[in-house]
Amino acid sequence: MLFKNITILDEDFNVRENMYVGTFGSRIRLISDKEPEYAEKYGEVYDGKDRLLMPGFYNAHGHSPMALMRGYGENLTLQDWLETRIFPFEAKLDSNAVYWGTLLCMMESLRFGIVSTQDMYYFTSDMVRAVADSGAKNNISRSLTNFDGTPFEQMESVREMKDAVRNYHGAEEGRILIDASLHAEYTSDEQTARGLAAYAKEEGIRMHVHVSETKREHEECKGRRGGRTPVRYLADCGIFDVPATAAHCVWIEGEDYDILKEKGVTVATNPVSNLKLASGICDSAALLRAGIGLAVGTDSVASNNSLNFLEEIKTLALVGKIKAGDPTVITPRQALYAATRGGALAQGRTDCGLLAEGQKADLIVMDISQPNMHPVHDMVNNIVYSAAGSDVVLTMADGKVLYKDGEYATIDKEKTVFETEKAAKGILAQL
Amino acid sequence: MLFKNITILDEDFNVRENMYVGTFGSRIRLISDKEPEYAEKYGEVYDGKDRLLMPGFYNAHGHSPMALMRGYGENLTLQDWLETRIFPFEAKLDSNAVYWGTLLCMMESLRFGIVSTQDMYYFTSDMVRAVADSGAKNNISRSLTNFDGTPFEQMESVREMKDAVRNYHGAEEGRILIDASLHAEYTSDEQTARGLAAYAKEEGIRMHVHVSETKREHEECKGRRGGRTPVRYLADCGIFDVPATAAHCVWIEGEDYDILKEKGVTVATNPVSNLKLASGICDSAALLRAGIGLAVGTDSVASNNSLNFLEEIKTLALVGKIKAGDPTVITPRQALYAATRGGALAQGRTDCGLLAEGQKADLIVMDISQPNMHPVHDMVNNIVYSAAGSDVVLTMADGKVLYKDGEYATIDKEKTVFETEKAAKGILAQL
Repeated sequence: MLFKNITILDEDFNVRENMYVGTFGSRIRLISDKEPEYAEKYGEVYDGKDRLLMPGFYNAHGHSPMALMRGYGENLTLQDWLETRIFPFEAKLDSNAVYWGTLLCMMESLRFGIVSTQDMYYFTSDMVRAVADSGAKNNISRSLTNFDGTPFEQMESVREMKDAVRNYHGAEEGRILIDASLHAEYTSDEQTARGLAAYAKEEGIRMHVHVSETKREHEECKGRRGGRTPVRYLADCGIFDVPATAAHCVWIEGEDYDILKEKGVTVATNPVSNLKLASGICDSAALLRAGIGLAVGTDSVASNNSLNFLEEIKTLALVGKIKAGDPTVITPRQALYAATRGGALAQGRTDCGLLAEGQKADLIVMDISQPNMHPVHDMVNNIVYSAAGSDVVLTMADGKVLYKDGEYATIDKEKTVFETEKAAKGILAQL
Repeated sequence: MLFKNITILDEDFNVRENMYVGTFGSRIRLISDKEPEYAEKYGEVYDGKDRLLMPGFYNAHGHSPMALMRGYGENLTLQDWLETRIFPFEAKLDSNAVYWGTLLCMMESLRFGIVSTQDMYYFTSDMVRAVADSGAKNNISRSLTNFDGTPFEQMESVREMKDAVRNYHGAEEGRILIDASLHAEYTSDEQTARGLAAYAKEEGIRMHVHVSETKREHEECKGRRGGRTPVRYLADCGIFDVPATAAHCVWIEGEDYDILKEKGVTVATNPVSNLKLASGICDSAALLRAGIGLAVGTDSVASNNSLNFLEEIKTLALVGKIKAGDPTVITPRQALYAATRGGALAQGRTDCGLLAEGQKADLIVMDISQPNMHPVHDMVNNIVYSAAGSDVVLTMADGKVLYKDGEYATIDKEKTVFETEKAAKGILAQL
């Protein structure tokens, strides 16, 4: 595709007008202020009037199939929500429901400019099918929990994980990657954590884990683990000996920052979900000051309740300021970096997340003609603070247009909505 | 207009499907589950497939012309922002700039479903012109500040206010109302506050005032006013002897709640702006518990930086939970009430804000076919937590369609954007 006369956000987040950007195959091959010779080799021409081209978004923490539970159980305490709503519903999940829930999630993701997600759940192969059908990218993981001391090698979930790594890691031309995942410190015993760490290291795959989401989890860990915080304990188990994404990190403290920095862990902050469950506010400004990698996640739709990524980015900046008590922290450029390049790196996608020649063509187009995008004193400020989620009008992954002006190239919208509703209602009927 | 086979949110926020809603003149005249006889008398028929009809939004606190300063000066402390950006810019404002800035703001408001705004600024007659041209509603006020002890009756701003009340209160068939406004406790002397209170009472108009937005303002007031909080001081001056809207109320305490309750003051909370300026978080749950009227405001675009009202409503619910440390507070229905009926009442528009026969036809249509709106376990949860700002596809005030599917009936979008950009750049060139 050749984007013509378009405003772009370049790899340094500078705004440049009247540019030409050509994609060929899965990559960005041309960025120029002049119309290229042989323009036709890039295929379809996209008129860039009133449009801005920028990197797509990388959602650093999700549980896609939980889209089935959108708005199911609100205004409950975390414990009530889990015990009376989420766990009973999840107990009735099946392959069909997970497939459609994931596909709905991919559709919503594309609408809001998310090209790739770092997902943690189960029913791995059904998630793989849905992601593959959508054309989007995903680091899928089968999260491990172990409440009964089953030896690591005998866990059913470990078998599922290993099958996924063997069958799907690098599938769909690398769009699908399989990560290792420990659900959290408090949901497994130590031999599981250590077994998984060793396995991930051996396979050379990444790690995805929940860390210090709630104060209770953080404090109880210290009681259970000889005064060690979740970060310290997980580090001791080797969980951070491979490149890792630590989701939440709301209650981390002291030495935790040093460990995360030293181990090169990326923190996936989920500001909307943390507010909604009243878990607390992640101190993103402190993470940035400490030089820790920051990425942005939506968490599941069941606790968000949307995948409106521009809303998530704005909320990241807003709550970072209130947490620090300082309006000068978390600049729009920092927030945008976390949502794009920061997220791509968290997924191990080093050739993604930048609008630069040679990078994968994971791109979005924003409609900058809307009243909320004017006047333009600083386009980056407007993108982060003023754009509406659905001002995204085109989403492309690996050079393929997956979403454009309300239409999905790979997904049957009406059928997906219908099947998801049917699956959700079918589960409710069994409760 | 006859909305046909449409899902509605009725006056008790119950969801009813396949309904018929007819507007005639400026009012809702029919709500029925059966197709009416003589359907043609309602005029144009709107097909309600995949659509939800609900009351429009009432923005309880704004400064519309400040749209000119969108994204101008970010990541500054409040003091730096005001002194190096806002005040110098405002010193160069003129009628033309205010007109276009206000019109841009009305356009953005309509896009996001806001039918009426409670605005506080100056250049009153230019704001009136823009609002009148847009067809939207507005409670406009000329906010008073007095730093040099000029007697109330000799203040130029008082003359402007009185002219506005005389010329415009009730204009445009009541769509435009003029409120009295004291900017804040800390920007006027006591004779100004008392003079304004007496004037508002005499004229029978409403009051709009900033209260306890920042901790500094709140604490310094106590030092200045013999230990009295801004609420206590303003009450003593008579400011709350007419129906009043108190914007922000982030730092109110103790007896303040009793005074606001006793005086029937509505609090306009501005959650996004309060986060962005790191002012703090209004305890909306405590206000609701105390039985105080709650409405939602965007504050100015310069500190928000958008009028995405669904985002504001969601943020209200989210920060209310985190402030209380309790995810069960601020139900979606409470948030939605504050944004609709609560806001209409704050503006003295008692025949607005409800989808009920006889009420003014201030209505919006939402597209509920989008992936982020499925599955539907509870439609009200989805509206508050899952809808994107621009899922609003139609906005009607007093029975007139002002916005539909990206098109504005009363406003020339391209011209307004062009003139606003030109006016903003023209001011910058003088700085």
